[in-house]
Amino acid sequence: MTVLDEFFAGQKLALSKIISHIENDGPQLRELLPILYDKAGRAYKVGLTGPPGAGKSTLVHKLAELYAERNHQVGIIAVDPSSPFTEGALLGDRIRMQNLAAYPNIFIRSMATRGSTGGLAASTGEVAMAMDAFGKETILIETVGVGQVELDIADSCDTTVVVLVPESGDSIQALKAGLMEIADIFVINKADRPGASKMASELSIILDFKKQKTGWEYPVVKTEAVNEIGIDELKDKIAAHREFLSADSRNEYHRRRKIKTELFHILDKRLKAHIAEHILTEDVFNKYIEQIRAGELNPYDAVDRIITTLMRDIANGRF
Amino acid sequence: MTVLDEFFAGQKLALSKIISHIENDGPQLRELLPILYDKAGRAYKVGLTGPPGAGKSTLVHKLAELYAERNHQVGIIAVDPSSPFTEGALLGDRIRMQNLAAYPNIFIRSMATRGSTGGLAASTGEVAMAMDAFGKETILIETVGVGQVELDIADSCDTTVVVLVPESGDSIQALKAGLMEIADIFVINKADRPGASKMASELSIILDFKKQKTGWEYPVVKTEAVNEIGIDELKDKIAAHREFLSADSRNEYHRRRKIKTELFHILDKRLKAHIAEHILTEDVFNKYIEQIRAGELNPYDAVDRIITTLMRDIANGRF
Repeated sequence: MTVLDEFFAGQKLALSKIISHIENDGPQLRELLPILYDKAGRAYKVGLTGPPGAGKSTLVHKLAELYAERNHQVGIIAVDPSSPFTEGALLGDRIRMQNLAAYPNIFIRSMATRGSTGGLAASTGEVAMAMDAFGKETILIETVGVGQVELDIADSCDTTVVVLVPESGDSIQALKAGLMEIADIFVINKADRPGASKMASELSIILDFKKQKTGWEYPVVKTEAVNEIGIDELKDKIAAHREFLSADSRNEYHRRRKIKTELFHILDKRLKAHIAEHILTEDVFNKYIEQIRAGELNPYDAVDRIITTLMRDIANGRF
Repeated sequence: MTVLDEFFAGQKLALSKIISHIENDGPQLRELLPILYDKAGRAYKVGLTGPPGAGKSTLVHKLAELYAERNHQVGIIAVDPSSPFTEGALLGDRIRMQNLAAYPNIFIRSMATRGSTGGLAASTGEVAMAMDAFGKETILIETVGVGQVELDIADSCDTTVVVLVPESGDSIQALKAGLMEIADIFVINKADRPGASKMASELSIILDFKKQKTGWEYPVVKTEAVNEIGIDELKDKIAAHREFLSADSRNEYHRRRKIKTELFHILDKRLKAHIAEHILTEDVFNKYIEQIRAGELNPYDAVDRIITTLMRDIANGRF
């Protein structure tokens, strides 16, 4: 029995293997992805993002439990731009996640892909697609950072939840990080702390403005994830947003935009791989580097020459 | 007098125009960049990054003043992944920056490039190069986020300063975000808050470990940027790191890697520009999207076709 057979027979280990193949950019990826693509397309993707320390992991944990208790098939992707160097330090944080192992219908994957520059957003989409093809109905994608890649990931989700904590200036920081724009739902976690109500009213001023553009009534949900307070309401709001999307005429526009984003991601990844493997090889690089360092050539002219060489190679069938 | 003449005559307005040309991917960029490249290469680039709210803007402000008071030519790039939607809210934060206008030898540029996915790291490098060519001696690059793009930017700097605040779990968050790995110098800002010493000792345990690999004695500098405390020490540590680098034999390796990254960025950008203009045009995209939505084509095969067309274009000299 091949891994793919096991995968379609619902074996979690096979899903793990397939995801590792995606993460490692395995040799059979080009054949694998269209197969997954064919089976995928039914899962609902919820992105949860926000500044470090907002308690996203706990929130995702509790939310997943709630879905799982209702016999829902849940996938969790925790995107973690850390490195092998720091892996040890992360264990504490991930230990809480282990509790979820008690639920057979929850599948968790942590992605620590620092290093594979640029590929993170693309790989996350592919891992979600694998979970989708496996039969996961809701996929929760937790991103730690607030950088461009994280915003891209959130962008590719159906519903984006931005998690904040009531601390002075945190709503301004959210604005700065561009989170305001991608949020469909706001969560103020650790809402027992002072400042929660002030933050909620600050947010609602901006959200009223946003509502006029989209028609969606942006909810601000107060939670205390560790005490399991507000999680039910968050789940309801996600369902409401899903309903809103399916009734919304702009949904067509969003779907097209998503396909476009997807195409660009795939293209970006393939192009980079192609450059690294076939164009800017170690030999080619070594040829130019001495000239660049000696000041005889600038990188722009070097790229011109690389493209000219490539042109000749292709024309001569040496590619 | 052309803009370039004005630029080389030291007129700030010309530098602004040149930077706008870079940001907007202007038509004369291909001619402009090699000219800037020829003049650049002397500036020292310091990246400052860390979680939102750590007080990076104030720190950069004070550091720039310190350099400026010593008749040093300083450039500041504040990379801000926000959007037109949030611009108003940012003003407050940028107002502090306006004070710097009093120093004729400080030039500030805020880059808010949310949307131009992928190009941010490349453009930031080009903007820094423009400042370098203009005669700036030290360039401070402040990134707000802790995402992949921000890490890439920090990576391309000579010295990377990671700014944290003494809050519970913040050092763990820094680990999670991959900041530990790129830091050459740590700053604990707002060091009057409780927990600063605890954080410093937490960090030094990890840094001892890191030192064994590189030989660099990673400093942890405590600052209170608003009270101008610790800024002098930070400046000294940056100078010490610069000294360390110039004596370090691994510097050769790093320089080669930087040129390679640069070549890769330029090549990637040129290929993508060609694809966007000539291959994946709105018409082609619309054709693919209908086929993809009808289930007749998957995005992977679509990308194959795009790359095949690209290679044919290159071979036929239509590039």
